[in-house]
Parts: sequence; structure tokens; C-alpha cells
Amino acid sequence: MATAGKVIKCKAAVAWEAGKPLSIEEVEVAPPQAMEVRVKILYTALCHTDVYFWEAKGQTPVFPRILGHEAGGIVESVGEGVTELAPGDHVLPLFTGECKECDHCKSEESNMCDLLRINVDRGVMIGDGKSRFTIKGKPIFHFVGTSTFSEYTVIHVGCLAKINPEAPLDKVCILSCGFSTGFGATVNVAKPKKGQTVAIFGLGAVGLAAMEGARLSGASRIIGVDLNPAKFEQAKKFGRTDFVNPKDHSKPVHEVLIEMTNGGLDRAVECTGNINAMISCFECVHDGWGVAVLVGVPTKDDVFKTHPMNFLNEKTLKGTFFGNYKPRTDLPNVVELYMKKELELEKFITHSVPFSEINTAFDLMLKGESLRCVMRMDE
Amino acid sequence: MATAGKVIKCKAAVAWEAGKPLSIEEVEVAPPQAMEVRVKILYTALCHTDVYFWEAKGQTPVFPRILGHEAGGIVESVGEGVTELAPGDHVLPLFTGECKECDHCKSEESNMCDLLRINVDRGVMIGDGKSRFTIKGKPIFHFVGTSTFSEYTVIHVGCLAKINPEAPLDKVCILSCGFSTGFGATVNVAKPKKGQTVAIFGLGAVGLAAMEGARLSGASRIIGVDLNPAKFEQAKKFGRTDFVNPKDHSKPVHEVLIEMTNGGLDRAVECTGNINAMISCFECVHDGWGVAVLVGVPTKDDVFKTHPMNFLNEKTLKGTFFGNYKPRTDLPNVVELYMKKELELEKFITHSVPFSEINTAFDLMLKGESLRCVMRMDE
Repeated sequence: MATAGKVIKCKAAVAWEAGKPLSIEEVEVAPPQAMEVRVKILYTALCHTDVYFWEAKGQTPVFPRILGHEAGGIVESVGEGVTELAPGDHVLPLFTGECKECDHCKSEESNMCDLLRINVDRGVMIGDGKSRFTIKGKPIFHFVGTSTFSEYTVIHVGCLAKINPEAPLDKVCILSCGFSTGFGATVNVAKPKKGQTVAIFGLGAVGLAAMEGARLSGASRIIGVDLNPAKFEQAKKFGRTDFVNPKDHSKPVHEVLIEMTNGGLDRAVECTGNINAMISCFECVHDGWGVAVLVGVPTKDDVFKTHPMNFLNEKTLKGTFFGNYKPRTDLPNVVELYMKKELELEKFITHSVPFSEINTAFDLMLKGESLRCVMRMDE
Repeated sequence: MATAGKVIKCKAAVAWEAGKPLSIEEVEVAPPQAMEVRVKILYTALCHTDVYFWEAKGQTPVFPRILGHEAGGIVESVGEGVTELAPGDHVLPLFTGECKECDHCKSEESNMCDLLRINVDRGVMIGDGKSRFTIKGKPIFHFVGTSTFSEYTVIHVGCLAKINPEAPLDKVCILSCGFSTGFGATVNVAKPKKGQTVAIFGLGAVGLAAMEGARLSGASRIIGVDLNPAKFEQAKKFGRTDFVNPKDHSKPVHEVLIEMTNGGLDRAVECTGNINAMISCFECVHDGWGVAVLVGVPTKDDVFKTHPMNFLNEKTLKGTFFGNYKPRTDLPNVVELYMKKELELEKFITHSVPFSEINTAFDLMLKGESLRCVMRMDE
């Protein structure tokens, strides 16, 4: 490529400070260094995690910053030592990586790479501790190693999944984070058997992806739990058979669920991050075989409490990170599921806007109106 | 048999009141009613659970009672409707049963039969709510449906495992409870892979059986955790490679274990019932893949507390009841493991006394000198 080795000037949406609308700026994107890849982003979606770190409530602020982590793109050039990717390859950026050499990567069971595990506070590349983005020479911070709200971005090779070039990037871009997190929580961790009952706590994009996992696993009954009755209708498309709003009941929601299911759910997946929902998610599963899976991220001071007899009565409590998918190894296969028409990603993409209207995507998510809004970088 | 249908007079060790030495008495044992079996006990072992309900501290007392639940015997006669057992069959009594018809029995994953699940407060047969034991016409209560401290006892057919008649009952009698509980916790629930590290909390008979499971699974390192340094040597025979006494350290034991194992254990099994040990057992396992299994029975008011991030970091917490063995279905296969010389039960049988000296067995256990003391009923 003519641009290889050179600084690329392009458009990026910069968050200059917490909670203020993003500003489309011309940024300079430096060439990739050792083990890095420069990617031309074609589509990027907005995930709630972007909003969370844009709001930066109770966080150490890292600004100015280029957010964004759900995306699809094409390799523009590669740095020294990169052998697994070449210009032209289609890739999904990943907020958490896979070095393939640490104990976690070598374990069949873990996807929590020691080297490239998500780090939300780091705003620079791990190779040299510097940013690849500048505006008039002044550095702009990265976000979770991806920063996909830019026409070009630099990413560690371990944080890129090489996918089928036939896959439509405007659809599979949402596999980068939210969909895989929820879907994997059900199919890789909760693993409901055909005919079993499943409860999903929290019906945002992650929860609905978890629900989609239950539907495709052949669950006989899927109970959606959410405080917002507006989620009721939407969840039907994802397989919900019942809906419980904890606000409609005077007793704890797990007691309601246990009564509805004659002793408890076979599986339950928690996608809100609220500690009481986590506890209810565990309490509501059936003794003898029930499995509860935690997905939502708790706050620093939360404490999970339960009577230990719940465990002795053979309930299992697990959690998951990125749906237990090994990012580089497994994501290409999830893309293939979509190519085989086994996944209905379109249901999740409720909106699409030109990149220049990125603040509309933020508004839609803040109002709870969108599941996923995909931004077209070329507009 | 000449005795079928008739009351049998025989010797039994009766606990007249809490904490007082048992008394060998002549008892009348009524014929088995529908779905019941009368068993001639040949060997019975003393388990800590017998001692616990004999001491009856903080319990609703159920006396006079015939304790005992680890045993081996031969069917003397069967009641109406019993088709799976016949006089002469060799059996292991089971403190928890398997009706084969409830949701738990039909589930592949559960062994917690709705009908015949352990009930420590019930002192009578479930068929008619009466006892089959009397002394001069006055009823004596049963214990967990087995009451094996008697030459003859009456047991529900769902609480008897029919085993290979070649199996020596003086050895396999200990499979009725403690050994299977600990061994199953490791091999059926924690499931360590060859080469993995395992910690065992509490080195009584159940803990050592859990350790034996780790040894036979090919664990590379087995860390025994106990407050009693006297357990140090004995545990060597069961595969212990390291020993940690929490009293020797100023920091929490899970921190010690995490340092010893470069980030945490692959598997940990808790066999004390102490809530702090349970919490440490979970905290000490490795993120990404660690599995902690709770076996020890907590008290009513215990609360298990942890930060939910531990789950999101992909640690799993499970518990088990009777080592997840389905009692009637699986115990015959455990007996076969012994017959194939894969299990070393002899290590667990530290003492043997005539039935008439049953109070010696209690003394040995109370002093912590025995793992299992087997009593010979014919002496």
C-alpha cells in the first residue's frame, strides 16, 4: 500500500472530555510498530461500554480519547514481526486479546490472556507506552486497544481476529463485543439442554444475545427479567416466552421465578451488573442441576452473598468474560455461524447512521431506543 | 427364609439419650412393609455424622434411636412390591435414596431424589410413619433410613445398592457414605485434569477420600490444608505433596495458597463445613479456569460472601451432595473400582472392633485417632 510506513491523516471522533459530545477531527495515525497492525475501519457500532467510559463517572478520566471497540475493518499495513495478518485481510478488532503464549491462552478453559487482557485505564499501546494518534502533534489516548471511532486505527496483532472476507462487515462488526459476550455466556457457559428453562436478567443487547443463545439451544421456556416494561415486546423476537418485571411483585423476584417453574430454572444468565440481580439469578436456579452465569460487571464494593447450602444442594455459580470465547481463535467461527445463517444478527442492529452523526448513536443508546447502532465510516 | 414375615429378635446398639454411651440391647425388628427390605448387617462403620447426631448439639433430639449408616449386609426378606432385590443379595445401605421416578432421579445431573433425599429429623419409615424397631413393644427411632447399628434393620428399597456378591463387605461397607462423598466430590465434580494442582481443606476421612480422588486423577501437586499438624504425616499416603496449616501464617490461607501456586489452584475441595474455609477454598482457585467444590456442611446461619468479580474472572463455585453419585445406580460401579484394585479402601480402615465394643469406635473418632473403625456384627 502506498500509505504503508507513513502517517495517515483521517477523520476520528474525539472525546475531549467526559460526557461532552464527540467531535469529528482530523487525526494523524502513526504507522504500526512491532506486533501492531493498522486497520481501516469500515463499520463500527456503539456499545454501552463506550458510553460508560465516555461518561467516566467515578473513573480516573483518560481524555482526550478515541473510543470504540465493536467494528469491522481491513488491514492497511502491518508492523515488524506480524506474520499472521497481511494488508487486505478482513478483521474484527477485539477489546481483549489472545497472545497464544501465556498460561491462560494455553489453557483450554480460559480466555483471559495475561498479556492482552482488557485494560480500560490504559490509553497507550503496550509496546512502547505511547499513543499512535495525534492531533497537530499532541497525543490522543487509545481505548481498550481498539479505538475504532476512527477511519484508521492501530491495534496489537493479538487483538484482531482474521475473518472470512465474504462476511458483511456492517453486520459481523457487532460480534466484536456485545453479541459474543451474551451469546457465549449461554452457549459456552450456561449450556442449556434442549427443552430446559432459562431466565435472562437484563434485556439490553447482551441479555438479548444471551436469550438468542437460549433460543438456539432449544430452551422450552425463556423468561426475560427486566425493570423496563418497554423491553417486553422487543424480547419476543429473541425467544422470550415469559416476562417478569420485579417491580410488579412484592416478593423477591427469585421467589416469583421459582414458583413459575415448579422449583427453579434450569439455567439463568445475569446481564445487568446489579448485585441484587446477580443474587436472584443464583437463587432462582433449581437445586440438583441449576447453573447460574454472571455476565454483568459489578461495582468495586459489591458483595455477593448467599447461604452455602445452595451450593451443597448442587447449584453451580459461574461467571464469564467475553462469553468464554478465545478472541482470535473462536471469533472467526462465530462469523461462520452467521455465514451459515445460524445467527440472526440483523435483529440486533436497530439503527445505522453515517459516522459524522456519531452523537446520534450516543443519544439513541442513552434513551434506551437502540440495541446496536452501526456507523458507516465512509459517510 | 424361615424368618421372613416374622419379627426378628437381635442385638442393636441403642442411643437412649444425647451423648450417653450406646447400650447393646435386644430389639424386635418387624418384617419389611411395602417397598421395604430387611437386611442382615454384617459390617458397619462409624462416620462422623453418626457422632454428630448422637451428640445432638443444637438439634431437636430424636431418641431413643438406632444410629449407623455406613454398612454392608445381605437381604433377609423383602416386602410387597420389591422386585429389584431378593433374599441373599449383597447390599450397601444408603442414607439418601433414589426412587428413579422424580425429576431429580430422571435428571442426568442430580442425585437429590425428592422422595428419598436424606432427612435427619425423621425417625420412622416413610411408608406408614412408624418405626420397625421396638424394645418390649416400645418404638425405637430410625436414623436416616438406615440404622445399621443393629444386626437386622429395615430399609426402603430405594436406599439400598445391590452390589457384586464377591465384594468383601468388611471393606466396601465404607463406600456407603464418607469415602464416596469425598472421592466423588473430586472425580465427579471438581474433575481435575492430569497434571493439575488441587487443594483439599480438611483432612478427615472425607477430605482424604477427596485427596485420593486427586491422586488417582493424576494431580501434579496436592496441597492439604488443616489446622491439626497431626494430619500431616497421615495425608502423605493419600497423595499429599504439600501441607499448609493456616495457624502458621498471619495472612489469609488463600493468599498463602495463591503464592505457592503462582496465581492459584486449578481445583480446590472443602471438607470441613467451616464458612471461612469455604470462602478460602473459592478465593484460592485460579482465575480463568479454577473450580472450587464445597462438601462440608455449614451451619444454618452461615453466609458465603465474595466479590462477584471472582465469578466474572471465570472461577466456578459448585457444591456436592454424596459426591454427585446417584446412590443405587452408581455405587455398584464404585464397588467394581475396588474389585479392579483401583481404590485403596484399606488405608481408610484404621480400626476394627467387635460390635459389642461400639463405644470404643466412638471414643476413637472423638479423639481424632481413627479414620474409619469397622465393627464386626457377629462378634
